[in-house]
Parts: sequence; C-alpha cells; structure tokens
Amino acid sequence: MSLSRAADARVELAHGAGGRASAELISGLFARHFANEWLLRGDDGAALPGLAPGDRLVLATDSHVVSPLFFPGGDIGCLAVHGTLNDVAMMGARPLWLAAAFILEEGFLLADLERIVISMARAAQESGAPIVTGDTKVVERGKGDGVFITTTGAGALAAEKNIGGAAARVGDVLLVSGTIGDHGMTILNARQGLDTLSAGMDFASAVVSDTAALWPLVEALGAANVEIHVLRDPTRGGLGATLNEIAAQSRAGLRLEERDIPVSPAVAASCEFLGLDPLYLANEGKLLLLCPEADAPRALEVMRGHPLGRNAAAIGRVVEDARGFVEMRTRTGGRRLIDWLAGDPLPRIC
Amino acid sequence: MSLSRAADARVELAHGAGGRASAELISGLFARHFANEWLLRGDDGAALPGLAPGDRLVLATDSHVVSPLFFPGGDIGCLAVHGTLNDVAMMGARPLWLAAAFILEEGFLLADLERIVISMARAAQESGAPIVTGDTKVVERGKGDGVFITTTGAGALAAEKNIGGAAARVGDVLLVSGTIGDHGMTILNARQGLDTLSAGMDFASAVVSDTAALWPLVEALGAANVEIHVLRDPTRGGLGATLNEIAAQSRAGLRLEERDIPVSPAVAASCEFLGLDPLYLANEGKLLLLCPEADAPRALEVMRGHPLGRNAAAIGRVVEDARGFVEMRTRTGGRRLIDWLAGDPLPRIC
Repeated sequence: MSLSRAADARVELAHGAGGRASAELISGLFARHFANEWLLRGDDGAALPGLAPGDRLVLATDSHVVSPLFFPGGDIGCLAVHGTLNDVAMMGARPLWLAAAFILEEGFLLADLERIVISMARAAQESGAPIVTGDTKVVERGKGDGVFITTTGAGALAAEKNIGGAAARVGDVLLVSGTIGDHGMTILNARQGLDTLSAGMDFASAVVSDTAALWPLVEALGAANVEIHVLRDPTRGGLGATLNEIAAQSRAGLRLEERDIPVSPAVAASCEFLGLDPLYLANEGKLLLLCPEADAPRALEVMRGHPLGRNAAAIGRVVEDARGFVEMRTRTGGRRLIDWLAGDPLPRIC
Repeated sequence: MSLSRAADARVELAHGAGGRASAELISGLFARHFANEWLLRGDDGAALPGLAPGDRLVLATDSHVVSPLFFPGGDIGCLAVHGTLNDVAMMGARPLWLAAAFILEEGFLLADLERIVISMARAAQESGAPIVTGDTKVVERGKGDGVFITTTGAGALAAEKNIGGAAARVGDVLLVSGTIGDHGMTILNARQGLDTLSAGMDFASAVVSDTAALWPLVEALGAANVEIHVLRDPTRGGLGATLNEIAAQSRAGLRLEERDIPVSPAVAASCEFLGLDPLYLANEGKLLLLCPEADAPRALEVMRGHPLGRNAAAIGRVVEDARGFVEMRTRTGGRRLIDWLAGDPLPRIC
C-alpha cells in the first residue's frame, strides 16, 4: 500500500474512513515517521511496560488548534508534543509516552501534514517520549481548519513528590525560567503579518516561539534537591492567568516585581507598539517555580546553568492573602492588580 | 465565578483563552459533572495511583467528530467515552482512567454542550473510569463543527496476556458479540432524515446505535478462562475493514459464513432499501473475538449470557492464506471476497 507523494496530494474523506486509504495514511505517514514497536503493531491501543514500583501515573491531555500552523521557531507538530509533555512535567513527572489524535480537514495538503508529522516525530524523539498510539479523523472542507492535534501524555511520578497548584506556601519565592511572551508575540506577528506592517521596524522579526520540552529543567531542579512546591507552564493567558490560578488554588496572594520579570527587547518593543501586556502573552517553553526561600538561590543557579533557563529570574513571592490577589509593584513604584484575563486578546495561540 | 445558565448562552472565544471565562466553563460545567478528586485539583494533569505490580500500561486515543451530535441511542458524549474505553478493553486491559479534550466552535449552544457533558459523565461513571484531566479549546465560527471530543484511556493489562491483531492462529474461530451495522445505520438515518424520506416504512425508526462499553464482556470471557487471541471492535469501516486488518496483521485468511452473521431485521431492511452492505457499517458496542476452536462454545455461552452479547454468533474461522484474504460464503453458496473498504460511504460516523 502506498500514499501519494505528489506535491499537491491532499487529505480526502476516505483517509478517515478506516479502509484502505486510512491504512495507507497510517503506514505511509504516521507509522513511517513515528516508528516504534508499539505503534507498528497496528492495534487500537498500545500495551506498554508498567511503572516502577511506587510510582504514580500522570496523565495530561491538550488539543492544539494554533493558527497559523507554521510559525517562527516551530509549528503545530512540535508544539503539540511540547505542550502536553510540559503538562506532564509540571506535575513533577517524567514523561514516558504520547498518544496523538489528528482531526484533518478534507483538502489539507499531505505535504504540509508530513512536515508537521516530521516535526512531531523529532520533538518526541528529543524528549524521549515516543508516540505509541494514535487516531485520525477527517472532517469535510469547512468543518475544521487544516489540522487539529490532540496529544495525551503519560508519565511516572515518584510517589514522595507532592507538586501542584495548591501547594504554594506563604514565603515561597516565585521564579520564572526565562523571558515571557515570546510564543504569544510570535503567533501574533505571524498572524497579523506584522513583519509587513512594520517595515522598517526590525523587532518583530526578532521574535521566535520558545516552544520546548521542559522536563530536563525539572529533572535538573530535582537533582539539585530543590524543594518544589508548584510548577506551572504559563501558556494560554500567560503569566497573569497562571498566577491567578495558583493564587486561587493555594488561597494565597502573590506579589510580583515588574522590574525583575524578564522580557526580551523585541517582545517589549512589539508589546509597546501594539499596546499589549506581556503578562498575558502565552509561553510554550517557560516554567514558573514556587519553592522555599532557602532553595531559591540554588534553583536560580540550576536554571541559569541550563540552556532552557539561561534568563531565569526570581520575580516575586507568596504572601498571606485570602482573597488570592496577584499584585505587581511597577517599575515606577506603583501597585497594579494583575487580574484574571477577561475576553480573549489572541485566540488559538496553542 | 459562574457560567451563564441562559438557554441561549453560547460558547465564546473567551471560553478557550485560559482566563476567567475558561475557569468558569471548567468549574461550572466540566468539574461540576465529571467531579472527582483528580479533576477538582485543577492542575494541568492528573497524578493517579500506580498500577498493580506486573501490570502493563495500556493507552488508546480517539477523536470523535460524529455528525449529528445527537442520535437515537446516544450522542457524541457517551460515544467518546465508549469508543476509547473499548479500544483499551480490546487490548485485554481493564480501563481505569480517561482524559477528555474538547474543541468547541464559537457559537455552540452551552445547553447542548452540557447535555453532552452529562452523557459523558454518566458513561464514565457506569464504566468505572473517571475523567481525571482535560482541556478545552475554542475555534472561530466556521473553523470547527459544534464540538469535537478527543478522549484518551489508560488501562491495566495483566502481564501474561498477549492479545493483538497479529495473534490469530489457523483454526481459530471468529465470534461476533451481536448484530452488526446498528450504529452506522443509525447515523445514516439521523443524517439523511431517512425517517422522513421513508414515511410509511417503519424499519428506519427501529434502528438504534449500539454504543456501549465492552469491558464487562471482556472481563466475563476472561473469568471463564476463554483463551483470547484477538479482540477488536469493528467500528469505522465495520466488520469488513476490521477483518482485513486482522488478516493482514496475522498474515492469515478469514472465511466467513454470511448466514451466520447476525443483522437485525431493521438494519437488513434499511441496507436493502439503500443499497448498502452491513459488513461495512460501523458498530460501537460489538466485539470480534478470535479464540481456539475448543474454547468457542464456552465463549459463545458467556457472551449470550451477558446483556452485551445476547445475539453473539460464531461467524467464521482463520485459515492458512498468506495473501490475507477475507472471503465469505454467501447465503446462496457462492464465494465473495470481502475487500478493504475503498472510499468513504459514510463520513464522520464516530
């Protein structure tokens, strides 16, 4: 069986029908690039090794609907791998396995799908979490948007770890692993054609998505015996939404220092130009860490010594505040409430 | 925080933005109906108990894009639970946990979403596999189709079991747990308004989807010590596609007896009326079993004694055939090759 390699070959409804065309798509594209013993077996699921004794099972799932599908620094494929693996890693768990489900729109270019699949395969390979099972559906033209990818990650969590959004304690220091807003601004640029709009301004073209798998950074923090209370990747809704979630879950307040929050010059300039706040822009390769004050210097050192955390910074701390307010001291010394994001400044960011 | 309960409230882009509206949708709808300790923790994933020593981990994932969303006998919600749990069960594994990811179209009625969520919650509850983690994305009007649901199931597989599509052996008997084509014909009727078209014919209204979770039937077969070689649920592409998959995986032939294949009178009449073949219609609550001839009578007895297998039948056997052909002896004594499904007679069946 063979899949058309013609440059203009497109997804057809038959590719989702479970018949010969489906089998060709699976063998010619998915199994070919994701190749591993579980997927190649061709069953409806994957039978994997068990966990080590005492380990807990961690599951996380994310649908990815980012638009455009390709953007500086990545594409929906590697994003779908990184996004879900990061949710597993943010539980403190080592990612082990991935499942991937595709919803394809009739007429989508097979060549574009292959680019995406190759990107996923590379990201999964680099992360050490193979794509062991999957599914493909095809919807009629106009009932989808090219491709949506839902990935689910499974990982192993050492039984003694108790990491979660509710575990912040008063006095904990808040660290971020690098500059914020890079992914969100990249998508905005790519979508709005800001490069064109802002001819003569070179900041837009300097913005690149930070999409990356964060487990190696989490592992390094663990190896350095940093006591981790909360780990979270500030994706949709950015730092602002994520910190409000943590404050609500932990029933505590958070106080930030604006001058300590790392923002790249290009993102800062773009934000100023567009009137956007980097606090609400998505990140896809950054983590927030809450740890005891005593561990914060070591955590910072570990992060800065790692390629994923070169620009890490301590940006705030947890205070007693039953209202769960997130407040920021601005550069000018004022105080600003960082509220939940209202509305959606930027749909389909991930 | 509260979600609008107005009858005409609709999904907005903000429900997918990760801010306040997202939190309201999660707490007011998903967490409310799926309520369990893991989901309520509100983290990006679920930290679950580990597996029993020696058990393997089984993962299966399926996107559900069925159209229409509601149909006689079920809806996309229970279908999304059953479909994925069945893929886990078909590996011989007990389903334990579910993850659910929603892709909502802007403008979709929240009341319809709630009906679907309630149906999912009930199906998960009945199956004993709670929905422990999830995700919601919203796409602009015209970029989706109401709601797509991707579910991923995790289960535990006793280490000694070795069930899979490649495990069929020459001489094995093929059993099906009941009538075929019920789900496919139901969707076709619902979509084509066949009830209207065929006023005066009452067969169409008698067809109801068979959507159901099959693990209890698998468990009963295991408890009766039936030696299971292959288990598969003939969903998309029906019996025809599934048997070709098994034949290809096992590099063996399959020989069917048409007169032994159970088809309900209503589905048979509808198929005749529409010129369709029940062999290629989807099922969502039926399993195919391949087991040694010596175990077949016991397997049949177990199935027939279970509500999910009342109309079970032995319909064929595995023969030596390196070409992997599936052949059927017809009612009239002729021979017919049951080929892979070509094209897609019925898109978006599940």
